[in-house]
Amino acid sequence: MPSLQDPVFATYVIAATIMILKVVAMSWLTVVRMMEVKGGFRSPEDLKKTPFNPSPDPSQLAPNDRVDRIRRIQLNDLENIPFFLVAGLLWLSTSPSLLEAQIVLYGYVVSRLLHFLAYFTKQIHEVRATFWTIGSLIIVYMAVRTLVAALGF
Amino acid sequence: MPSLQDPVFATYVIAATIMILKVVAMSWLTVVRMMEVKGGFRSPEDLKKTPFNPSPDPSQLAPNDRVDRIRRIQLNDLENIPFFLVAGLLWLSTSPSLLEAQIVLYGYVVSRLLHFLAYFTKQIHEVRATFWTIGSLIIVYMAVRTLVAALGF
Amino acid sequence: MPSLQDPVFATYVIAATIMILKVVAMSWLTVVRMMEVKGGFRSPEDLKKTPFNPSPDPSQLAPNDRVDRIRRIQLNDLENIPFFLVAGLLWLSTSPSLLEAQIVLYGYVVSRLLHFLAYFTKQIHEVRATFWTIGSLIIVYMAVRTLVAALGF
Repeated sequence: MPSLQDPVFATYVIAATIMILKVVAMSWLTVVRMMEVKGGFRSPEDLKKTPFNPSPDPSQLAPNDRVDRIRRIQLNDLENIPFFLVAGLLWLSTSPSLLEAQIVLYGYVVSRLLHFLAYFTKQIHEVRATFWTIGSLIIVYMAVRTLVAALGF
Repeated sequence: MPSLQDPVFATYVIAATIMILKVVAMSWLTVVRMMEVKGGFRSPEDLKKTPFNPSPDPSQLAPNDRVDRIRRIQLNDLENIPFFLVAGLLWLSTSPSLLEAQIVLYGYVVSRLLHFLAYFTKQIHEVRATFWTIGSLIIVYMAVRTLVAALGF
Repeated sequence: MPSLQDPVFATYVIAATIMILKVVAMSWLTVVRMMEVKGGFRSPEDLKKTPFNPSPDPSQLAPNDRVDRIRRIQLNDLENIPFFLVAGLLWLSTSPSLLEAQIVLYGYVVSRLLHFLAYFTKQIHEVRATFWTIGSLIIVYMAVRTLVAALGF
Protein backbone atom coordinates (compact mmCIF):
# COMPACT_ATOMS: atom_id res chain seq x y z
CA MET A 1 0.00 0.00 0.00
CA PRO A 2 1.58 3.35 -1.00
CA SER A 3 1.55 6.19 1.54
CA LEU A 4 -1.00 9.00 1.59
CA GLN A 5 2.07 11.28 1.44
CA ASP A 6 2.39 10.20 -2.21
CA PRO A 7 0.29 12.87 -4.00
CA VAL A 8 -0.71 10.56 -6.87
CA PHE A 9 -1.94 7.90 -4.45
CA ALA A 10 -3.70 10.58 -2.37
CA THR A 11 -5.45 11.78 -5.56
CA TYR A 12 -6.70 8.25 -6.20
CA VAL A 13 -7.83 7.84 -2.59
CA ILE A 14 -9.77 11.13 -2.70
CA ALA A 15 -11.52 10.15 -5.94
CA ALA A 16 -12.19 6.58 -4.72
CA THR A 17 -13.65 7.55 -1.34
CA ILE A 18 -15.90 10.22 -2.88
CA MET A 19 -17.22 7.62 -5.32
CA ILE A 20 -17.78 5.10 -2.49
CA LEU A 21 -19.70 7.69 -0.48
CA LYS A 22 -21.71 8.52 -3.63
CA VAL A 23 -22.84 4.91 -4.11
CA VAL A 24 -23.67 4.49 -0.42
CA ALA A 25 -25.68 7.74 -0.58
CA MET A 26 -27.90 6.12 -3.24
CA SER A 27 -28.93 3.45 -0.71
CA TRP A 28 -29.86 6.13 1.81
CA LEU A 29 -31.71 8.14 -0.83
CA THR A 30 -33.70 5.02 -1.70
CA VAL A 31 -34.64 4.68 1.97
CA VAL A 32 -35.64 8.37 2.17
CA ARG A 33 -37.88 8.06 -0.88
CA MET A 34 -39.45 4.77 0.33
CA MET A 35 -40.38 6.54 3.57
CA GLU A 36 -41.62 9.60 1.66
CA VAL A 37 -43.93 7.64 -0.69
CA LYS A 38 -44.57 4.89 1.91
CA GLY A 39 -44.03 2.36 -0.85
CA GLY A 40 -41.71 0.96 -3.48
CA PHE A 41 -40.98 -1.95 -1.16
CA ARG A 42 -39.84 -5.31 -2.51
CA SER A 43 -40.21 -7.93 0.22
CA PRO A 44 -43.55 -9.49 1.20
CA GLU A 45 -42.68 -9.15 4.91
CA ASP A 46 -42.53 -5.35 4.49
CA LEU A 47 -46.33 -5.42 4.54
CA LYS A 48 -46.35 -6.43 8.20
CA LYS A 49 -47.71 -3.80 10.58
CA THR A 50 -44.78 -2.19 12.42
CA PRO A 51 -44.00 1.23 13.97
CA PHE A 52 -42.47 2.30 10.62
CA ASN A 53 -45.39 0.99 8.58
CA PRO A 54 -48.51 1.44 10.74
CA SER A 55 -51.00 1.06 7.84
CA PRO A 56 -49.69 -1.62 5.49
CA ASP A 57 -51.29 -1.96 2.05
CA PRO A 58 -50.52 -4.40 -0.79
CA SER A 59 -49.98 -1.43 -3.13
CA GLN A 60 -46.77 -0.69 -1.19
CA LEU A 61 -45.12 -3.54 -3.10
CA ALA A 62 -45.97 -1.98 -6.49
CA PRO A 63 -43.18 -0.32 -8.48
CA ASN A 64 -42.84 3.40 -7.74
CA ASP A 65 -40.83 5.60 -10.08
CA ARG A 66 -39.61 7.97 -7.37
CA VAL A 67 -37.96 5.00 -5.68
CA ASP A 68 -37.08 3.02 -8.79
CA ARG A 69 -35.30 6.02 -10.35
CA ILE A 70 -32.78 5.97 -7.50
CA ARG A 71 -32.47 2.18 -7.85
CA ARG A 72 -31.71 2.58 -11.56
CA ILE A 73 -29.08 5.21 -10.78
CA GLN A 74 -27.55 2.88 -8.20
CA LEU A 75 -27.57 -0.09 -10.59
CA ASN A 76 -25.75 2.10 -13.10
CA ASP A 77 -23.25 2.89 -10.35
CA LEU A 78 -22.77 -0.83 -9.66
CA GLU A 79 -22.02 -1.38 -13.35
CA ASN A 80 -19.35 1.30 -13.29
CA ILE A 81 -17.87 2.38 -9.98
CA PRO A 82 -16.43 -0.92 -8.67
CA PHE A 83 -14.48 -1.17 -11.93
CA PHE A 84 -13.31 2.42 -11.65
CA LEU A 85 -12.09 1.68 -8.13
CA VAL A 86 -9.98 -1.32 -9.17
CA ALA A 87 -8.89 0.02 -12.58
CA GLY A 88 -7.78 3.27 -10.90
CA LEU A 89 -5.78 1.47 -8.23
CA LEU A 90 -4.03 -0.77 -10.76
CA TRP A 91 -3.42 2.16 -13.12
CA LEU A 92 -1.26 3.74 -10.41
CA SER A 93 1.28 0.99 -11.13
CA THR A 94 1.92 2.67 -14.52
CA SER A 95 3.23 5.75 -12.62
CA PRO A 96 1.03 8.47 -14.14
CA SER A 97 2.09 12.07 -13.50
CA LEU A 98 0.20 13.98 -10.79
CA LEU A 99 -1.45 16.21 -13.40
CA GLU A 100 -2.62 13.25 -15.49
CA ALA A 101 -3.89 11.46 -12.36
CA GLN A 102 -5.86 14.55 -11.31
CA ILE A 103 -7.43 15.02 -14.76
CA VAL A 104 -8.35 11.35 -15.18
CA LEU A 105 -9.48 10.54 -11.63
CA TYR A 106 -11.22 13.82 -10.77
CA GLY A 107 -12.61 13.88 -14.32
CA TYR A 108 -14.28 10.55 -13.54
CA VAL A 109 -15.73 11.85 -10.28
CA VAL A 110 -17.16 14.92 -12.00
CA SER A 111 -18.62 12.84 -14.86
CA ARG A 112 -20.41 10.56 -12.38
CA LEU A 113 -21.76 13.43 -10.27
CA LEU A 114 -23.12 15.08 -13.43
CA HIS A 115 -24.57 11.73 -14.53
CA PHE A 116 -26.39 11.55 -11.20
CA LEU A 117 -27.69 15.10 -11.57
CA ALA A 118 -28.92 14.45 -15.13
CA TYR A 119 -30.65 11.19 -14.15
CA PHE A 120 -32.07 12.59 -10.91
CA THR A 121 -33.61 15.62 -12.65
CA LYS A 122 -34.94 13.47 -15.55
CA GLN A 123 -32.94 15.13 -18.31
CA ILE A 124 -33.32 13.61 -21.78
CA HIS A 125 -31.33 10.46 -22.42
CA GLU A 126 -28.65 12.28 -24.47
CA VAL A 127 -27.51 14.39 -21.50
CA ARG A 128 -27.25 11.44 -19.13
CA ALA A 129 -25.60 9.31 -21.84
CA THR A 130 -22.94 11.95 -22.46
CA PHE A 131 -21.79 11.95 -18.84
CA TRP A 132 -21.98 8.16 -18.66
CA THR A 133 -19.85 7.89 -21.80
CA ILE A 134 -17.11 10.14 -20.40
CA GLY A 135 -16.89 8.01 -17.25
CA SER A 136 -16.94 4.75 -19.18
CA LEU A 137 -14.18 5.90 -21.53
CA ILE A 138 -12.03 6.91 -18.54
CA ILE A 139 -12.30 3.36 -17.16
CA VAL A 140 -11.44 1.94 -20.59
CA TYR A 141 -8.46 4.31 -20.87
CA MET A 142 -7.05 3.32 -17.48
CA ALA A 143 -7.64 -0.41 -18.06
CA VAL A 144 -6.06 -0.41 -21.54
CA ARG A 145 -3.04 1.64 -20.41
CA THR A 146 -2.51 -0.71 -17.47
CA LEU A 147 -3.00 -3.85 -19.58
CA VAL A 148 -0.49 -2.64 -22.16
CA ALA A 149 2.04 -1.80 -19.44
CA ALA A 150 1.55 -5.20 -17.75
CA LEU A 151 2.05 -6.96 -21.09
CA GLY A 152 5.44 -5.20 -21.24
CA PHE A 153 4.89 -3.11 -24.38
CA MET B 1 0.78 -5.11 -0.85
CA PRO B 2 1.44 -5.33 2.91
CA SER B 3 2.44 -8.69 4.40
CA LEU B 4 0.02 -11.10 6.09
CA GLN B 5 2.46 -10.89 9.02
CA ASP B 6 1.07 -7.38 9.62
CA PRO B 7 -1.82 -8.06 12.05
CA VAL B 8 -3.90 -5.08 10.86
CA PHE B 9 -3.62 -6.18 7.22
CA ALA B 10 -4.37 -9.79 8.23
CA THR B 11 -7.51 -8.54 10.02
CA TYR B 12 -8.64 -6.82 6.83
CA VAL B 13 -7.87 -9.90 4.74
CA ILE B 14 -9.87 -12.15 7.09
CA ALA B 15 -12.88 -9.82 6.98
CA ALA B 16 -12.60 -9.31 3.21
CA THR B 17 -12.33 -12.99 2.29
CA ILE B 18 -15.24 -13.96 4.58
CA MET B 19 -17.37 -11.29 2.88
CA ILE B 20 -16.31 -12.50 -0.60
CA LEU B 21 -17.23 -16.08 0.32
CA LYS B 22 -20.55 -14.80 1.70
CA VAL B 23 -21.50 -13.12 -1.59
CA VAL B 24 -20.43 -16.13 -3.65
CA ALA B 25 -22.51 -18.34 -1.34
CA MET B 26 -25.60 -16.33 -2.36
CA SER B 27 -25.09 -17.45 -5.97
CA TRP B 28 -24.90 -21.06 -4.89
CA LEU B 29 -27.94 -20.68 -2.65
CA THR B 30 -29.87 -19.26 -5.61
CA VAL B 31 -28.89 -22.35 -7.62
CA VAL B 32 -29.95 -24.67 -4.78
CA ARG B 33 -33.35 -22.98 -4.51
CA MET B 34 -33.90 -22.96 -8.29
CA MET B 35 -33.30 -26.73 -8.31
CA GLU B 36 -35.54 -27.17 -5.25
CA VAL B 37 -38.53 -25.30 -6.70
CA LYS B 38 -37.63 -26.24 -10.29
CA GLY B 39 -38.28 -22.65 -11.29
CA GLY B 40 -37.40 -19.01 -10.79
CA PHE B 41 -35.43 -19.15 -14.04
CA ARG B 42 -34.82 -16.02 -16.10
CA SER B 43 -33.62 -17.05 -19.57
CA PRO B 44 -35.97 -18.37 -22.28
CA GLU B 45 -33.46 -21.11 -23.18
CA ASP B 46 -33.81 -22.54 -19.65
CA LEU B 47 -37.11 -24.02 -20.84
CA LYS B 48 -35.31 -26.42 -23.17
CA LYS B 49 -35.56 -30.08 -22.20
CA THR B 50 -32.24 -31.18 -20.67
CA PRO B 51 -31.08 -33.73 -18.06
CA PHE B 52 -31.43 -31.01 -15.36
CA ASN B 53 -34.86 -29.91 -16.56
CA PRO B 54 -36.59 -33.04 -17.92
CA SER B 55 -40.13 -31.56 -17.85
CA PRO B 56 -39.90 -27.91 -18.90
CA ASP B 57 -42.91 -25.66 -18.31
CA PRO B 58 -43.42 -21.95 -19.09
CA SER B 59 -44.29 -21.32 -15.42
CA GLN B 60 -40.62 -21.97 -14.60
CA LEU B 61 -39.86 -18.46 -15.86
CA ALA B 62 -42.35 -16.87 -13.43
CA PRO B 63 -40.99 -15.04 -10.36
CA ASN B 64 -40.62 -17.28 -7.33
CA ASP B 65 -40.17 -15.72 -3.91
CA ARG B 66 -37.97 -18.52 -2.54
CA VAL B 67 -35.47 -17.78 -5.32
CA ASP B 68 -36.05 -14.03 -5.55
CA ARG B 69 -35.47 -13.57 -1.82
CA ILE B 70 -31.89 -14.80 -2.24
CA ARG B 71 -31.50 -12.59 -5.33
CA ARG B 72 -32.65 -9.57 -3.29
CA ILE B 73 -30.17 -10.43 -0.54
CA GLN B 74 -27.41 -10.73 -3.13
CA LEU B 75 -28.35 -7.43 -4.80
CA ASN B 76 -28.14 -5.82 -1.36
CA ASP B 77 -24.68 -7.39 -1.03
CA LEU B 78 -23.66 -5.95 -4.41
CA GLU B 79 -24.72 -2.49 -3.22
CA ASN B 80 -22.57 -2.80 -0.12
CA ILE B 81 -19.77 -5.36 -0.05
CA PRO B 82 -17.63 -4.22 -3.03
CA PHE B 83 -17.47 -0.78 -1.41
CA PHE B 84 -16.58 -2.28 1.97
CA LEU B 85 -13.76 -4.23 0.29
CA VAL B 86 -12.20 -1.14 -1.31
CA ALA B 87 -12.98 1.33 1.52
CA GLY B 88 -11.47 -1.14 4.01
CA LEU B 89 -8.28 -1.60 1.99
CA LEU B 90 -7.80 2.15 1.53
CA TRP B 91 -8.62 2.83 5.18
CA LEU B 92 -5.55 0.77 6.14
CA SER B 93 -3.45 3.66 4.78
CA THR B 94 -4.66 5.75 7.73
CA SER B 95 -2.84 3.29 10.06
CA PRO B 96 -5.70 2.32 12.39
CA SER B 97 -4.75 0.48 15.59
CA LEU B 98 -5.24 -3.29 15.64
CA LEU B 99 -8.09 -2.96 18.14
CA GLU B 100 -9.89 -0.34 16.03
CA ALA B 101 -9.37 -2.43 12.87
CA GLN B 102 -10.83 -5.51 14.59
CA ILE B 103 -13.89 -3.63 15.89
CA VAL B 104 -14.61 -1.89 12.58
CA LEU B 105 -13.84 -4.73 10.15
CA TYR B 106 -15.20 -7.67 12.18
CA GLY B 107 -18.14 -5.46 13.20
CA TYR B 108 -18.96 -5.09 9.52
CA VAL B 109 -18.77 -8.85 8.95
CA VAL B 110 -21.08 -9.54 11.90
CA SER B 111 -23.57 -6.86 10.76
CA ARG B 112 -23.77 -8.39 7.28
CA LEU B 113 -24.17 -11.95 8.57
CA LEU B 114 -26.98 -10.80 10.87
CA HIS B 115 -28.53 -8.87 7.95
CA PHE B 116 -28.51 -12.11 5.96
CA LEU B 117 -30.09 -14.03 8.81
CA ALA B 118 -32.83 -11.42 9.29
CA TYR B 119 -33.61 -11.28 5.55
CA PHE B 120 -33.42 -15.05 5.09
CA THR B 121 -35.82 -15.74 7.97
CA LYS B 122 -38.22 -12.96 6.86
CA GLN B 123 -37.91 -10.81 9.96
CA ILE B 124 -39.79 -7.49 9.90
CA HIS B 125 -38.12 -4.69 7.99
CA GLU B 126 -36.90 -2.92 11.16
CA VAL B 127 -34.63 -5.84 12.16
CA ARG B 128 -33.05 -6.16 8.72
CA ALA B 129 -32.74 -2.36 8.41
CA THR B 130 -30.91 -2.12 11.73
CA PHE B 131 -28.17 -4.51 10.66
CA TRP B 132 -27.97 -2.91 7.21
CA THR B 133 -27.57 0.51 8.83
CA ILE B 134 -24.68 -0.60 11.03
CA GLY B 135 -22.81 -1.96 8.01
CA SER B 136 -23.54 1.10 5.90
CA LEU B 137 -22.33 3.46 8.63
CA ILE B 138 -19.10 1.46 8.96
CA ILE B 139 -18.41 1.99 5.23
CA VAL B 140 -19.19 5.70 5.60
CA TYR B 141 -16.90 5.93 8.65
CA MET B 142 -13.95 4.30 6.86
CA ALA B 143 -14.47 6.31 3.66
CA VAL B 144 -14.76 9.66 5.48
CA ARG B 145 -11.75 8.97 7.70
CA THR B 146 -9.68 8.00 4.66
CA LEU B 147 -10.88 10.97 2.60
CA VAL B 148 -10.02 13.39 5.40
CA ALA B 149 -6.55 11.83 5.80
CA ALA B 150 -5.92 11.95 2.03
CA LEU B 151 -6.95 15.61 1.94
CA GLY B 152 -4.20 16.21 4.51
CA PHE B 153 -6.32 17.40 7.42
CA MET C 1 1.50 -1.67 -4.73
CA PRO C 2 3.87 -4.29 -6.22
CA SER C 3 5.71 -3.45 -9.44
CA LEU C 4 4.59 -4.55 -12.91
CA GLN C 5 8.13 -6.01 -13.16
CA ASP C 6 6.92 -8.71 -10.74
CA PRO C 7 5.61 -11.40 -13.13
CA VAL C 8 3.00 -12.71 -10.68
CA PHE C 9 1.57 -9.21 -10.13
CA ALA C 10 1.68 -8.55 -13.89
CA THR C 11 -0.30 -11.78 -14.43
CA TYR C 12 -2.95 -10.55 -11.99
CA VAL C 13 -3.04 -7.12 -13.64
CA ILE C 14 -3.49 -8.64 -17.11
CA ALA C 15 -6.36 -10.87 -15.90
CA ALA C 16 -7.96 -8.03 -13.91
CA THR C 17 -7.89 -5.43 -16.68
CA ILE C 18 -9.25 -7.89 -19.26
CA MET C 19 -12.14 -8.66 -16.88
CA ILE C 20 -12.79 -4.95 -16.27
CA LEU C 21 -12.88 -4.29 -20.03
CA LYS C 22 -15.21 -7.28 -20.41
CA VAL C 23 -17.75 -5.88 -17.93
CA VAL C 24 -17.57 -2.39 -19.44
CA ALA C 25 -18.11 -3.95 -22.89
CA MET C 26 -21.46 -5.32 -21.62
CA SER C 27 -22.66 -1.74 -21.03
CA TRP C 28 -21.70 -0.76 -24.57
CA LEU C 29 -23.31 -3.90 -26.00
CA THR C 30 -26.52 -3.00 -24.15
CA VAL C 31 -26.40 0.44 -25.78
CA VAL C 32 -25.78 -1.08 -29.23
CA ARG C 33 -28.74 -3.42 -28.86
CA MET C 34 -31.04 -0.67 -27.50
CA MET C 35 -30.24 1.39 -30.60
CA GLU C 36 -30.70 -1.66 -32.84
CA VAL C 37 -34.15 -2.59 -31.50
CA LYS C 38 -35.01 1.05 -30.66
CA GLY C 39 -36.34 -0.19 -27.33
CA GLY C 40 -35.59 -1.99 -24.09
CA PHE C 41 -35.43 1.39 -22.36
CA ARG C 42 -36.12 1.74 -18.65
CA SER C 43 -36.66 5.43 -17.83
CA PRO C 44 -39.91 7.28 -18.61
CA GLU C 45 -37.93 10.28 -19.92
CA ASP C 46 -36.44 8.06 -22.65
CA LEU C 47 -39.79 8.42 -24.44
CA LYS C 48 -39.13 12.12 -25.09
CA LYS C 49 -38.60 13.02 -28.73
CA THR C 50 -34.88 13.62 -29.31
CA PRO C 51 -32.42 13.27 -32.22
CA PHE C 52 -31.64 9.72 -31.01
CA ASN C 53 -35.31 8.78 -30.60
CA PRO C 54 -37.23 10.69 -33.29
CA SER C 55 -40.41 8.54 -33.07
CA PRO C 56 -41.00 7.69 -29.40
CA ASP C 57 -43.52 4.98 -28.55
CA PRO C 58 -44.61 3.61 -25.15
CA SER C 59 -43.66 0.08 -26.31
CA GLN C 60 -40.02 1.19 -26.11
CA LEU C 61 -40.23 0.77 -22.33
CA ALA C 62 -41.36 -2.87 -22.64
CA PRO C 63 -38.84 -5.63 -21.83
CA ASN C 64 -36.90 -6.79 -24.88
CA ASP C 65 -34.97 -10.05 -24.73
CA ARG C 66 -32.19 -8.91 -27.08
CA VAL C 67 -31.39 -6.12 -24.61
CA ASP C 68 -32.30 -7.97 -21.42
CA ARG C 69 -30.02 -10.91 -22.30
CA ILE C 70 -27.02 -8.59 -22.18
CA ARG C 71 -28.31 -7.08 -18.92
CA ARG C 72 -28.58 -10.58 -17.41
CA ILE C 73 -25.03 -11.36 -18.52
CA GLN C 74 -23.84 -8.11 -16.96
CA LEU C 75 -25.71 -8.76 -13.71
CA ASN C 76 -24.00 -12.15 -13.59
CA ASP C 77 -20.70 -10.31 -14.08
CA LEU C 78 -21.53 -7.96 -11.20
CA GLU C 79 -22.16 -10.97 -8.96
CA ASN C 80 -18.77 -12.42 -9.81
CA ILE C 81 -16.08 -10.16 -11.26
CA PRO C 82 -15.73 -7.53 -8.48
CA PHE C 83 -15.07 -10.40 -6.07
CA PHE C 84 -12.56 -11.98 -8.45
CA LEU C 85 -10.76 -8.63 -8.66
CA VAL C 86 -10.39 -8.28 -4.89
CA ALA C 87 -9.91 -11.98 -4.08
CA GLY C 88 -7.20 -12.16 -6.75
CA LEU C 89 -5.36 -9.12 -5.44
CA LEU C 90 -5.44 -10.39 -1.86
CA TRP C 91 -4.46 -13.90 -2.93
CA LEU C 92 -1.16 -12.47 -4.20
CA SER C 93 -0.21 -11.96 -0.54
CA THR C 94 0.01 -15.78 -0.23
CA SER C 95 2.89 -15.71 -2.75
CA PRO C 96 1.59 -18.18 -5.36
CA SER C 97 4.10 -19.43 -7.93
CA LEU C 98 3.98 -17.84 -11.39
CA LEU C 99 2.64 -21.06 -12.91
CA GLU C 100 -0.14 -21.37 -10.33
CA ALA C 101 -1.04 -17.68 -10.77
CA GLN C 102 -1.24 -18.11 -14.53
CA ILE C 103 -3.45 -21.22 -14.30
CA VAL C 104 -5.80 -19.75 -11.70
CA LEU C 105 -6.07 -16.17 -13.01
CA TYR C 106 -6.06 -16.87 -16.75
CA GLY C 107 -8.31 -19.89 -16.07
CA TYR C 108 -10.83 -17.49 -14.55
CA VAL C 109 -10.64 -15.15 -17.55
CA VAL C 110 -11.19 -18.03 -19.98
CA SER C 111 -14.11 -19.41 -17.92
CA ARG C 112 -15.85 -15.99 -17.96
CA LEU C 113 -15.30 -15.44 -21.68
CA LEU C 114 -16.75 -18.89 -22.40
CA HIS C 115 -19.65 -18.13 -20.02
CA PHE C 116 -20.34 -15.00 -22.06
CA LEU C 117 -20.21 -16.93 -25.32
CA ALA C 118 -22.57 -19.63 -24.01
CA TYR C 119 -25.05 -17.07 -22.66
CA PHE C 120 -24.82 -14.81 -25.71
CA THR C 121 -25.49 -17.66 -28.14
CA LYS C 122 -28.34 -19.06 -25.96
CA GLN C 123 -26.75 -22.43 -25.23
CA ILE C 124 -28.67 -24.70 -22.85
CA HIS C 125 -28.34 -23.90 -19.17
CA GLU C 126 -25.89 -26.77 -18.52
CA VAL C 127 -23.20 -25.27 -20.79
CA ARG C 128 -23.44 -21.80 -19.28
CA ALA C 129 -23.62 -23.27 -15.74
CA THR C 130 -20.44 -25.29 -16.30
CA PHE C 131 -18.37 -22.22 -17.17
CA TRP C 132 -19.97 -20.21 -14.37
CA THR C 133 -19.11 -22.99 -11.90
CA ILE C 134 -15.44 -23.06 -12.90
CA GLY C 135 -15.15 -19.30 -12.34
CA SER C 136 -17.03 -19.40 -9.06
CA LEU C 137 -14.85 -22.23 -7.73
CA ILE C 138 -11.71 -20.26 -8.66
CA ILE C 139 -12.93 -17.33 -6.54
CA VAL C 140 -13.71 -19.70 -3.67
CA TYR C 141 -10.28 -21.32 -3.99
CA MET C 142 -8.45 -17.99 -3.86
CA ALA C 143 -10.57 -16.65 -0.99
CA VAL C 144 -10.21 -19.80 1.13
CA ARG C 145 -6.45 -20.04 0.52
CA THR C 146 -6.03 -16.38 1.47
CA LEU C 147 -8.30 -16.67 4.52
CA VAL C 148 -6.39 -19.71 5.80
CA ALA C 149 -3.05 -17.91 5.29
CA ALA C 150 -4.31 -14.77 7.06
CA LEU C 151 -5.53 -16.86 9.99
CA GLY C 152 -1.94 -18.11 10.30
CA PHE C 153 -2.51 -21.80 9.60
